[in-house]
Amino acid sequence: MKTDIPVLQEISAANDMLAADLRRLFREKGVLVLNLIASPGAGKTSLLEKTISLARNRLRIAVIEGDPSTSLDGQRVQEAGGAAGQINTGGGCHLEAAMVQQVLPHMDLDACDMVIIENVGNLLCPAGWDLGQDLQIVVASLPEGDDKPLKYPIAFATAQAAVINKIDLEPHIPSRVAKMRQNMLSINATLAVFELSCLTNHGVADWVDWLEAQLQAKRKRPPVMNADSV
Amino acid sequence: MKTDIPVLQEISAANDMLAADLRRLFREKGVLVLNLIASPGAGKTSLLEKTISLARNRLRIAVIEGDPSTSLDGQRVQEAGGAAGQINTGGGCHLEAAMVQQVLPHMDLDACDMVIIENVGNLLCPAGWDLGQDLQIVVASLPEGDDKPLKYPIAFATAQAAVINKIDLEPHIPSRVAKMRQNMLSINATLAVFELSCLTNHGVADWVDWLEAQLQAKRKRPPVMNADSV
Repeated sequence: MKTDIPVLQEISAANDMLAADLRRLFREKGVLVLNLIASPGAGKTSLLEKTISLARNRLRIAVIEGDPSTSLDGQRVQEAGGAAGQINTGGGCHLEAAMVQQVLPHMDLDACDMVIIENVGNLLCPAGWDLGQDLQIVVASLPEGDDKPLKYPIAFATAQAAVINKIDLEPHIPSRVAKMRQNMLSINATLAVFELSCLTNHGVADWVDWLEAQLQAKRKRPPVMNADSV
Repeated sequence: MKTDIPVLQEISAANDMLAADLRRLFREKGVLVLNLIASPGAGKTSLLEKTISLARNRLRIAVIEGDPSTSLDGQRVQEAGGAAGQINTGGGCHLEAAMVQQVLPHMDLDACDMVIIENVGNLLCPAGWDLGQDLQIVVASLPEGDDKPLKYPIAFATAQAAVINKIDLEPHIPSRVAKMRQNMLSINATLAVFELSCLTNHGVADWVDWLEAQLQAKRKRPPVMNADSV
């Protein structure tokens, strides 16, 4: 979380400047960049695996894996066919733009259509740190409870899309998909909400179609001429 | 998370001193204090409801609710019959000893056997902040995935007990109870591990028996005469 402590305000301002640099670079390269935020175990890595697998013949996807410990997720992504850069935060609770910058020299952006950054599993801290992404995506799994958007609103308020994962479990739990969607939209009415299951593949195709449309839209937008782009 | 930034080291040292004060107070009052840590949606509040309900005739339990937003959990705990003090962190990612201290004047410790502090839903940041508790309990739900202890080891490494919640979902998901237990113990071999379901009540009685035994053990221990207790 960003706080009101002055030294952290400085760190946060430096992060925002670096994120703006990254955003310009991603723009030049015509690469769509997602920042994936979720609780531990919501299914970010499963969603990545399914996305890479289904989009294989349409989109070249590279992944930047943020993990507090281990490279288990990076291995899973590579096995699924995605090129993965690994950031091990050593227990740190969120990614920052400088960490993304450090991993970029090991990636070939010219060979990418899309970079998906899997943030550290944490619904609170990552939301305050811009990584230069086009889209912040929040993933919430149904068994976490349909009240989660109300209790952890920041990530939903600042996102452009939300995924409700593990909807196949609805018959076995009290949590309801429709209620979770309603709670998400009550926090942020502009959210694109996707209901899906990485176990049954339900909804994954719609999600990948939407990503492809976002990429096309980004590439069609004329370059913005403002102070930021000089 | 605690970091290496000097100003945060000072904050963290101040927290540890205050936590030691709280620990002395809890000792004087003969109150057992738990610090409950988990991802969002692991089932901390459901576990509280079940614990309060089952222990009603044996243990007087008060709850301190930490929430980044809303008082939904505090309402649930009060409806279950627990006295609840509410800390709203305004988006903050963990509780600190000073927050616990501020809520204590609104609680009657002489009328309590046990205080359960429900930390903010976050598997990373709360683990670094001592609240004066006797026991740090980490709650992980089976649908989060049995690999979670390996990926988020800090909370497990520093805990005395772990609860595997939502084990009723095992037939419907790839995650295995035995594997999750094994992964927890590989991080911390001294953990007391409880497998339970707040939906079916399976395992809740064993958990409450264990808590009562911890309380009795604390009250039987002679006062420690060291620098801390002067």
